[in-house]
Amino acid sequence: MTQRKSFGSDNQAGAHDAVLSALAQANFGDAVGYGDDPWTQRAAGALRTAFGARGGVFFVFTGTAANVLGLSMLLRSYEGVICAESAHVNVDECGAPERILGSKLLTVPTPDGKLSPGLISARLVDRGDEHRVQPRVVTISQVTELGTCYTLAELKSLGEFCRAEKLRLYIDGARLANAAAHLGCSLADLAAHADVLSFGGTKNGAVGAEAVVVMAEELVANAPFLRKQQGQLASKMRYLAVQFQALLDDDLWLHNAGHANAMARRLAEGIHGVPGARLWQPVESNAVFVSLDPAQIASLQRNWQFYVWDTAAQVVRWMTAYDTTEADVDAFVAEVWRGSGA
Amino acid sequence: MTQRKSFGSDNQAGAHDAVLSALAQANFGDAVGYGDDPWTQRAAGALRTAFGARGGVFFVFTGTAANVLGLSMLLRSYEGVICAESAHVNVDECGAPERILGSKLLTVPTPDGKLSPGLISARLVDRGDEHRVQPRVVTISQVTELGTCYTLAELKSLGEFCRAEKLRLYIDGARLANAAAHLGCSLADLAAHADVLSFGGTKNGAVGAEAVVVMAEELVANAPFLRKQQGQLASKMRYLAVQFQALLDDDLWLHNAGHANAMARRLAEGIHGVPGARLWQPVESNAVFVSLDPAQIASLQRNWQFYVWDTAAQVVRWMTAYDTTEADVDAFVAEVWRGSGA
Amino acid sequence: MTQRKSFGSDNQAGAHDAVLSALAQANFGDAVGYGDDPWTQRAAGALRTAFGARGGVFFVFTGTAANVLGLSMLLRSYEGVICAESAHVNVDECGAPERILGSKLLTVPTPDGKLSPGLISARLVDRGDEHRVQPRVVTISQVTELGTCYTLAELKSLGEFCRAEKLRLYIDGARLANAAAHLGCSLADLAAHADVLSFGGTKNGAVGAEAVVVMAEELVANAPFLRKQQGQLASKMRYLAVQFQALLDDDLWLHNAGHANAMARRLAEGIHGVPGARLWQPVESNAVFVSLDPAQIASLQRNWQFYVWDTAAQVVRWMTAYDTTEADVDAFVAEVWRGSGA
Amino acid sequence: MTQRKSFGSDNQAGAHDAVLSALAQANFGDAVGYGDDPWTQRAAGALRTAFGARGGVFFVFTGTAANVLGLSMLLRSYEGVICAESAHVNVDECGAPERILGSKLLTVPTPDGKLSPGLISARLVDRGDEHRVQPRVVTISQVTELGTCYTLAELKSLGEFCRAEKLRLYIDGARLANAAAHLGCSLADLAAHADVLSFGGTKNGAVGAEAVVVMAEELVANAPFLRKQQGQLASKMRYLAVQFQALLDDDLWLHNAGHANAMARRLAEGIHGVPGARLWQPVESNAVFVSLDPAQIASLQRNWQFYVWDTAAQVVRWMTAYDTTEADVDAFVAEVWRGSGA
Repeated sequence: MTQRKSFGSDNQAGAHDAVLSALAQANFGDAVGYGDDPWTQRAAGALRTAFGARGGVFFVFTGTAANVLGLSMLLRSYEGVICAESAHVNVDECGAPERILGSKLLTVPTPDGKLSPGLISARLVDRGDEHRVQPRVVTISQVTELGTCYTLAELKSLGEFCRAEKLRLYIDGARLANAAAHLGCSLADLAAHADVLSFGGTKNGAVGAEAVVVMAEELVANAPFLRKQQGQLASKMRYLAVQFQALLDDDLWLHNAGHANAMARRLAEGIHGVPGARLWQPVESNAVFVSLDPAQIASLQRNWQFYVWDTAAQVVRWMTAYDTTEADVDAFVAEVWRGSGA
Repeated sequence: MTQRKSFGSDNQAGAHDAVLSALAQANFGDAVGYGDDPWTQRAAGALRTAFGARGGVFFVFTGTAANVLGLSMLLRSYEGVICAESAHVNVDECGAPERILGSKLLTVPTPDGKLSPGLISARLVDRGDEHRVQPRVVTISQVTELGTCYTLAELKSLGEFCRAEKLRLYIDGARLANAAAHLGCSLADLAAHADVLSFGGTKNGAVGAEAVVVMAEELVANAPFLRKQQGQLASKMRYLAVQFQALLDDDLWLHNAGHANAMARRLAEGIHGVPGARLWQPVESNAVFVSLDPAQIASLQRNWQFYVWDTAAQVVRWMTAYDTTEADVDAFVAEVWRGSGA
Repeated sequence: MTQRKSFGSDNQAGAHDAVLSALAQANFGDAVGYGDDPWTQRAAGALRTAFGARGGVFFVFTGTAANVLGLSMLLRSYEGVICAESAHVNVDECGAPERILGSKLLTVPTPDGKLSPGLISARLVDRGDEHRVQPRVVTISQVTELGTCYTLAELKSLGEFCRAEKLRLYIDGARLANAAAHLGCSLADLAAHADVLSFGGTKNGAVGAEAVVVMAEELVANAPFLRKQQGQLASKMRYLAVQFQALLDDDLWLHNAGHANAMARRLAEGIHGVPGARLWQPVESNAVFVSLDPAQIASLQRNWQFYVWDTAAQVVRWMTAYDTTEADVDAFVAEVWRGSGA
Repeated sequence: MTQRKSFGSDNQAGAHDAVLSALAQANFGDAVGYGDDPWTQRAAGALRTAFGARGGVFFVFTGTAANVLGLSMLLRSYEGVICAESAHVNVDECGAPERILGSKLLTVPTPDGKLSPGLISARLVDRGDEHRVQPRVVTISQVTELGTCYTLAELKSLGEFCRAEKLRLYIDGARLANAAAHLGCSLADLAAHADVLSFGGTKNGAVGAEAVVVMAEELVANAPFLRKQQGQLASKMRYLAVQFQALLDDDLWLHNAGHANAMARRLAEGIHGVPGARLWQPVESNAVFVSLDPAQIASLQRNWQFYVWDTAAQVVRWMTAYDTTEADVDAFVAEVWRGSGA
């Protein structure tokens, strides 16, 4: 590793000062445990309002936990989850959905990480056949693992398709803030067609906090028990809640996400024209996916931290964060140019 | 609730200042995620040394999660866990062991929350009978849910019994610090006969952090995968690690636990002689269990926060914390005397 | 083992000739698999009528499977099952409810294997508390594992209690036929207050077949998927179905059970007055539980097959079957008298 | 349906007379339950010998159950199963592997249902990465769901690859008999490189019986408990065992499979030259996969029972069984020709 800014992941950044200040401010005196405290009530209430959630908001510790909790509200044991092959739930959760939920993932290959009614339809065969897992939930990531965003029109179309097909819609919103910033819309706009979704704090400047947002009131009764059973009920809940409060105050969450997105665009624009470098996905959030010559990848990795996304396709992923500076981007861009021999 | 110090639970206290300072100090620059950072390496290393653990140390977020992770290293699906009826895993984890591990708990009634070779033996029937869950792990809580401590001799006897019977020993150490303070022994002494144990930070002044300590090297290979699958792998792990580092520095953990224990003793001594009040369990940690007249319980609860442990038996639980003061105790004791009419 | 009739278990008997004949009669030509055949339709229809089941009937292979399937229709993951400590689901299914359902069993000690509203109430604490498994299903065995029967009045009282407390009632009916014979009532009478129940064929003369009877229509939608997922969907279903058809024709099931019950009564009456022999439970089915001198137990076991139920209490269990003869009983009774030295 | 012989599935056939006779012959007197009887000992012993299995043989009721039991001996919760996309475990078990085992299936698209070291390698990425399910078992079907067979050389190559990569090899042998007949080899030859495999009786003339064969002794200790927990321990085990005994006597299993295979070849040869009909897979067992004009499919289905395998690709599956006659095949072939207008 190097002291240079990492482009490895937005979870390699530290926490925003406002988040740490909020922890300190909440650190006075006793509070009833498990969420029955004023900080939790306030932050959960603010999130309910922001999302237009009639159900409720449940804080948990990790993105995997948020996805498992959210999906567990929507599934019976023989029901399956339609998702993109590249989905975090499919690839990066060490089988938690299968093991903790007992549910099969019905995966669909996609070019850009995004599902569509057409792609989902391919998985809607054999409904009612007892030999087959029954599709029940569609899960999408907003933004996707490939940095792409669903437009509001696409979300609406997915939502209407799911309703018509009696499917539930779950959104993995680990980077939902980046989608809101990219689309210039509200959290409620993003959530309008979802049954349950997560809202990531960790990658947006928190120490470690995610929220599970339950849109419909009739879905919420199970949630407290499921959260507890899944090991995600914080005794000192206030310290999760105030992280979100800090992000909500003065729309810090939106500012952070907007900045990270801007840095990704700056990076993409900066390398425009570099010989051999080609954007692999459109830049719609804080991720830049680029195909690059292997020699140049190796050379860049000597001084900079980032991940090779696809070795065969020679695609790298460069992530920006809320604390990536223009100077960080410019220094990195300069090195990309230098390495290209142009 | 009242501004008076709560005697409800040691998890109602805030975090120790040193823990918050440690969070702030760790909040500079990037760190590789998921524990491959210097803070995590240092804190995990320090804990390994303190426990004499040849396996490894894994940070998680909650006590339930620690128990589930620890037990999951020790069990196959048809193997069961012998525990006291009063054990947290049996009573207070919303069925997580059954649901997440798929394991049956083989419970034993106890007068004081403590298991013994004799009590365990009653559950060692039908070994080898395929119709029956096979006992494989004994789990004890140190200190127990009733505030009692196993002596080092009792731990040794349990450990030897388990080894002889080919049983694994797991310790739920949510309040292990209080046991060390009470017994005047090291963490390694407490862990000497365990296969895996947890070490609680949250109730000892952390914001929210527990450690799972794997004693034997051969048990450790599964642990990273199980932690991830159970939704407990922190991306910004440094913020879990430094909480423990703060507790380890200058033996803050021991100081905190010793103080809480002393406050419990002060409370128990203070109410000695109150008419109608009778200690229900010996005071060996930071808990005071007392049987009390229902009218007095109701009267006390008007101004003070604590839980009725057993309504039928009229037993209340008063917990002290690292930040309970002598003045807090004395004010509470005075009210108990007042309420007694003595 | 000996050529003498076993008193070990009613599952040690062979199959009734009528059952084998039915298998042979069904063995002509092709049949669509998985239950969509005329034999299955006919037997399932007959059972629906006999039970007054508006839901449906699902054939499975074993008693454990029937219980797991039945309970799985009634539970969410954090909901628990109240049962007697002596229940088959608790003792004799190798943890299948915990492992396959992920559900906690909330056990109640009983003197005679029977639950009552009062005993159940003791488990109805902490409803709504997210730390605790939420009681949702009461399961009783009819007849119980101790050979006792719930009266129709007791069933009604349990059913009303469960409805009032928003609990579901499941009946493990591995020996339901013996209860009907003992009580002189119909299967519909026994099932009137249950949500789901099993009806055992194996112990009543089948080769190996159990039925899961779903009383209410709204519970039935999940059943086909759950049965398949649990490995219990027979491809050649007709061979399960005709076993039940054979038992239903001319009320063979009732005749078989009534005979077995009569043999148990004859046995109990035969040993009346044997020195040192004392009935441990009333004889209300085809089981005779007797406390006996250990020396006499050992002596009897030299020539006869039966199980010691409780070594400490010196209780043995003698089971009769549909094919136990009066001569079998009389020979055994004679040996008991001989061994008693009376 | 029609009285014409079904080409729908080999599980639509009835049971072989020898199997029913064996049931009748076993139906005398008592037998100790759960497999501790002479019929079970004999049949299990014969199968152990035939397979060269040092572990043991466990009878169960269905193919799904056999696969789940077999895989459960080989996996920890975070370990995955590499299989063909077309595998029965992936497609036709209603999510049992995910739900009952908690394991993720790592699927691989194949042209012919067969895995190879090359195809498996594509799934061997990220070993040791805690975010990813760890590949641990390769499961193949022999014969495959597409009717194709692995050659002995292919099995050897797969076995050596698995050993080198520390992967376990499981074989779904629902139609293993057909593979032996096709390859002209012994059951031991087929099993030589497997760790655990199933051997199907149901599709080969049994009423309903499958065997799980454990090759290595060190794998066998868990099996009895897992079988019981999974609801597959028959109390009257003799009736499962004698079905296999009947199939083993005079190599009836091989005769049955060889006959079914011959009928499939006769069918394939019979339709050779039919306009518009094209074999989609080589005929290496008792299945004939043919692509056909949709109008002709519809016309054929008016009088004959078979399944459309792939609507988009217009592929039908015609299965033969041990009791399919030459006349059945010839009548069907004649109708195919008639419908083709040739």
